[in-house]
Amino acid sequence: MAESAKGTKKSSLRFGAGLWMFGQFIDRYATNAYGPQVSVLEAIERAGEVGELDALDINFPFDEGVSTDDVAAALQRANLRAHAITPIIYDRTFTRGSFTHPDPDVRKRAIALSKDAIPVARQLGAKYVKFWPGQDGFDYPFQVNYADLWGLAVNGVAEVARSAPDVQFAIEYKVKEPRTHLFWSNAATTLLAIEATGLDNIGIVMDLGHSLFAKEAPAAALNLVHSRSRLTSIELNDNWREWDDDLAVGSVHLLETIEFLIEVRRIGWTDVLLLDQFPFREDPVRAARSSIRTLRRLDAVIDKMDLDALRAAQQRQYALEAQEIVMSALLGE
Amino acid sequence: MAESAKGTKKSSLRFGAGLWMFGQFIDRYATNAYGPQVSVLEAIERAGEVGELDALDINFPFDEGVSTDDVAAALQRANLRAHAITPIIYDRTFTRGSFTHPDPDVRKRAIALSKDAIPVARQLGAKYVKFWPGQDGFDYPFQVNYADLWGLAVNGVAEVARSAPDVQFAIEYKVKEPRTHLFWSNAATTLLAIEATGLDNIGIVMDLGHSLFAKEAPAAALNLVHSRSRLTSIELNDNWREWDDDLAVGSVHLLETIEFLIEVRRIGWTDVLLLDQFPFREDPVRAARSSIRTLRRLDAVIDKMDLDALRAAQQRQYALEAQEIVMSALLGE
Amino acid sequence: MAESAKGTKKSSLRFGAGLWMFGQFIDRYATNAYGPQVSVLEAIERAGEVGELDALDINFPFDEGVSTDDVAAALQRANLRAHAITPIIYDRTFTRGSFTHPDPDVRKRAIALSKDAIPVARQLGAKYVKFWPGQDGFDYPFQVNYADLWGLAVNGVAEVARSAPDVQFAIEYKVKEPRTHLFWSNAATTLLAIEATGLDNIGIVMDLGHSLFAKEAPAAALNLVHSRSRLTSIELNDNWREWDDDLAVGSVHLLETIEFLIEVRRIGWTDVLLLDQFPFREDPVRAARSSIRTLRRLDAVIDKMDLDALRAAQQRQYALEAQEIVMSALLGE
Amino acid sequence: MAESAKGTKKSSLRFGAGLWMFGQFIDRYATNAYGPQVSVLEAIERAGEVGELDALDINFPFDEGVSTDDVAAALQRANLRAHAITPIIYDRTFTRGSFTHPDPDVRKRAIALSKDAIPVARQLGAKYVKFWPGQDGFDYPFQVNYADLWGLAVNGVAEVARSAPDVQFAIEYKVKEPRTHLFWSNAATTLLAIEATGLDNIGIVMDLGHSLFAKEAPAAALNLVHSRSRLTSIELNDNWREWDDDLAVGSVHLLETIEFLIEVRRIGWTDVLLLDQFPFREDPVRAARSSIRTLRRLDAVIDKMDLDALRAAQQRQYALEAQEIVMSALLGE
Repeated sequence: MAESAKGTKKSSLRFGAGLWMFGQFIDRYATNAYGPQVSVLEAIERAGEVGELDALDINFPFDEGVSTDDVAAALQRANLRAHAITPIIYDRTFTRGSFTHPDPDVRKRAIALSKDAIPVARQLGAKYVKFWPGQDGFDYPFQVNYADLWGLAVNGVAEVARSAPDVQFAIEYKVKEPRTHLFWSNAATTLLAIEATGLDNIGIVMDLGHSLFAKEAPAAALNLVHSRSRLTSIELNDNWREWDDDLAVGSVHLLETIEFLIEVRRIGWTDVLLLDQFPFREDPVRAARSSIRTLRRLDAVIDKMDLDALRAAQQRQYALEAQEIVMSALLGE
Repeated sequence: MAESAKGTKKSSLRFGAGLWMFGQFIDRYATNAYGPQVSVLEAIERAGEVGELDALDINFPFDEGVSTDDVAAALQRANLRAHAITPIIYDRTFTRGSFTHPDPDVRKRAIALSKDAIPVARQLGAKYVKFWPGQDGFDYPFQVNYADLWGLAVNGVAEVARSAPDVQFAIEYKVKEPRTHLFWSNAATTLLAIEATGLDNIGIVMDLGHSLFAKEAPAAALNLVHSRSRLTSIELNDNWREWDDDLAVGSVHLLETIEFLIEVRRIGWTDVLLLDQFPFREDPVRAARSSIRTLRRLDAVIDKMDLDALRAAQQRQYALEAQEIVMSALLGE
Repeated sequence: MAESAKGTKKSSLRFGAGLWMFGQFIDRYATNAYGPQVSVLEAIERAGEVGELDALDINFPFDEGVSTDDVAAALQRANLRAHAITPIIYDRTFTRGSFTHPDPDVRKRAIALSKDAIPVARQLGAKYVKFWPGQDGFDYPFQVNYADLWGLAVNGVAEVARSAPDVQFAIEYKVKEPRTHLFWSNAATTLLAIEATGLDNIGIVMDLGHSLFAKEAPAAALNLVHSRSRLTSIELNDNWREWDDDLAVGSVHLLETIEFLIEVRRIGWTDVLLLDQFPFREDPVRAARSSIRTLRRLDAVIDKMDLDALRAAQQRQYALEAQEIVMSALLGE
Repeated sequence: MAESAKGTKKSSLRFGAGLWMFGQFIDRYATNAYGPQVSVLEAIERAGEVGELDALDINFPFDEGVSTDDVAAALQRANLRAHAITPIIYDRTFTRGSFTHPDPDVRKRAIALSKDAIPVARQLGAKYVKFWPGQDGFDYPFQVNYADLWGLAVNGVAEVARSAPDVQFAIEYKVKEPRTHLFWSNAATTLLAIEATGLDNIGIVMDLGHSLFAKEAPAAALNLVHSRSRLTSIELNDNWREWDDDLAVGSVHLLETIEFLIEVRRIGWTDVLLLDQFPFREDPVRAARSSIRTLRRLDAVIDKMDLDALRAAQQRQYALEAQEIVMSALLGE
């Protein structure tokens, strides 16, 4: 991993969000959805209401009849910019896989759709095209040949990324859902597979919740990805560590969120932090504001923290002392 | 718990299924669904195609414009009968709760809808009305007052059950999904809460997959529920123990499925075993047949097993011997 | 469950600890132990050094040659009192079970040893005799007959408790370790089994870490046990939710610890809170002080919290609002 | 990953075991151990009694007063050979770490002890020196600087391996225990870290149970490690997937054990399979024989399996068909 603590000075956090957070939610039980339909343009408007967001990760294709120009105009009205474009390679067409689909024709469609996202990303000035190959994996023991799965997964993203060397791509890993096992499951596997492509323009979206879900130490995973020069983006949320619950930031794993934010400082991250929440039963604007408020407060806690003393305690690996330094900043004397 | 091994003689298995298994699946990613829409009458027809099903658990209300008579006729055509009626108290109306919804008006609607299912169950000759209060619970730390939640959950089912003392009701517990925490989470909690109603006509649907998901020993949970005279129904499927994956029976936890089936014999169960699967990416008719074939084969394995020797090994709690008896029947000499 | 919020006034916390926390630790890898031997009298002396402990849970039998009078004297010197006596029904004699051992002679020894603890508890003025039947359970599928296991487990504790109706007993549940499955696994199962004895003098030790480990909402479990009038004692520690790591209080699950402490107030608990830690690699005196300091700080956070507003948010089950109230008290404005 | 199915012809399994399996067990509760002491020479004799073992993984240093010649003689008497030597870098000296210990002096001792194992491995003709750095990791959030931990872990094994380029070394990863988090946690992380050393003589011990514990698909992990040319050894056992229970092979996850054994064939493995069990409450000789009997039976099941049809089903990723092929071989028609 990389050396650490470059400055560790006070950061001034900036935020973005996944646009899906402001859309309609559905699941296998509430098949009539958790609320009414929300168009992509309405969702952008809602995102703008948060008032503290700079940038969005936007799914592509957009709603039927909505052009990239329409999206650009909506973003401008909402005082937002596109941060990432995420091709929808996980809906009905791709339920049995996108890049790893057993049928080569469907694989081609996944690659084609991903390539179609590139000019959109360029036009909207997005930083990267995100791969979220959530249907690539398996459900049952014996279902796949794991060597084949590896090959298909790696080749698919490589083919897209190779076609546009000037564009940044990024993979968001997750351990499961909607398959019982996803191929891009954790930070280390994703690094191995990305490095196998030999390409420089594929990075990783470090999603704090996905890292918790993968039973990683998220700060360690962040450091590892950064040390390999593969850190493209950071997404934040929380969960109960056994599912991708996409809850408000810090609402369950407050201490690990703080540890993650300290590492975000240590590596010198200055780009936006993206919220990735699914507020099924909450108002999404409030849900976003609530997370941002928590993040600003945690940032202030870290400002108060004696990070040099923490570093020293960590060098001695002395858990109680490290914890006491954190608790003092968090809970007061 | 009850004494055991009443006869433990060869059983002749009969099967049913949850009708949802033959319908359309959707989740939060494939928002355009895993396949085309399937009407309730088409789903019944598909269930009939399996050829080895006797009975169905049917969601209520039916599709708009479909009457109970229509359903009855479709069942007859498919050579099936209604085994249970499950009111849909978990869709958009109830996303923040059914019996435990914070708004008393919504609670009343959940109770009313559940009561509406009673005459339908009577007309179709169903054995029980099933409660699946999947939206009753919470998502976040601090979200609910747990004592209040208990009261609302218990009172809701009690009010419905008290209104029809001649009708059997049954609760299907699950540890989570679609909430991060469901109130009716495991066998022991469900027994405590049911017994708190003081009513005799509320039982439990023992879902093998939900029991695995709750990290129970499913055979122990089955025995416990039976010993308390609360066993109303048995549902079968499999999962990876961290989510309700609703996979084909025995496909992951083969040994615990065998142990469960032995306990099914021991308690003298002669009613149908219901399949509860979500074959998102598989043909549902084949998925049902596959599970049934596995179950018949496992039943034959149990026939070959020296159950007296197993009982004796268990009395000595000698794990290796018990395992060897099972392996001999399963894998041959 | 019980109604709540009786007063919810400021509490003045008092503390105790399990004496084992100040002893020698060993595990299956460091078979030569994590440090030198510590006699029971030395351990009491160490506990006294913490300076903020009132009471101890003490394992019985004591070291060879140490009398109850010796222990009483050591306690007096250390300004401590006995809070509980815990018979050692989980060492070599009982590795295949204590109350549920397949051999009736060993079961008798477990019962006899437990009864032997009663006069010791009386002499030392302990509040209760604790059962920790950590070897009662099973390791393998097919190993036990679950109905038999239930009977043995319930009868064992009942026989001891029936022999001394004036003495309080308490069971500490845990989901596993040292067996892969313990019989007394979670709050609901333990309540069912205790109530099956028909005895009033058997309660529950609510161990926060064991509740987290059982994937319970600890505040809900506490409320449930209290509402059934079975709450005898409370133990505190933390873990990673997949093992009984016995870490310092609040070091991982800070928010759930706060939620638990709020519930401790709501039920009107005024007795000591016992630390149950295994500081394998830390100084135990510092480990205890660190936990106590965290607890006092969390208590001060709760003092600052608008508990009426929290109660109101919970009645509406509004997660974001409830979280914001907590975050305001914890993190400041 | 590697291409697959090289032949997939009938294998003739050979077995070994970790010598610890025949020794004395202890844990933090039964501090007086699960049985009497067993010397290393007695343990070798017991291993010989199994009658079907060829080779042993032997901990080093041996008991005081036991020379390498003594061990060699005991092996010869028992008709066994040394397969691996595992330096004990996880006992009292190293409880706060071996290669990652905060104190450079202790790190040096870990390196020195590991180097001392090399001539022993040479003298006994062992295939490899095994690193099991089970104390390298952390217990608490904030305890370590993850970049530092990475550096220490990698440098430690590299220094040992670099000192003897003609000797094979192998790391056995595990996700936790005795620390709450081990550094060498899963296959992908271990591969990344090994490759960072730039050395060819460090491989991986694929422990089936550790792979299950890490929530990997063990067959996938095996294939990945093999495809990177880092597969040095294979160990077998089973567990409940949430702890390293070290149970008899196939006793819980029978299907995944079969899938793993199929992959063992596919990669053309012909070396011994090592048992790694902790039969705390069972006779170790019987425990070993039981596992070997299961393995031979599973091997016969795989012989009956239509592996070409399975391969074809996997190419179409058709879960039900793949499962049916396995079930037919396993359960008969």
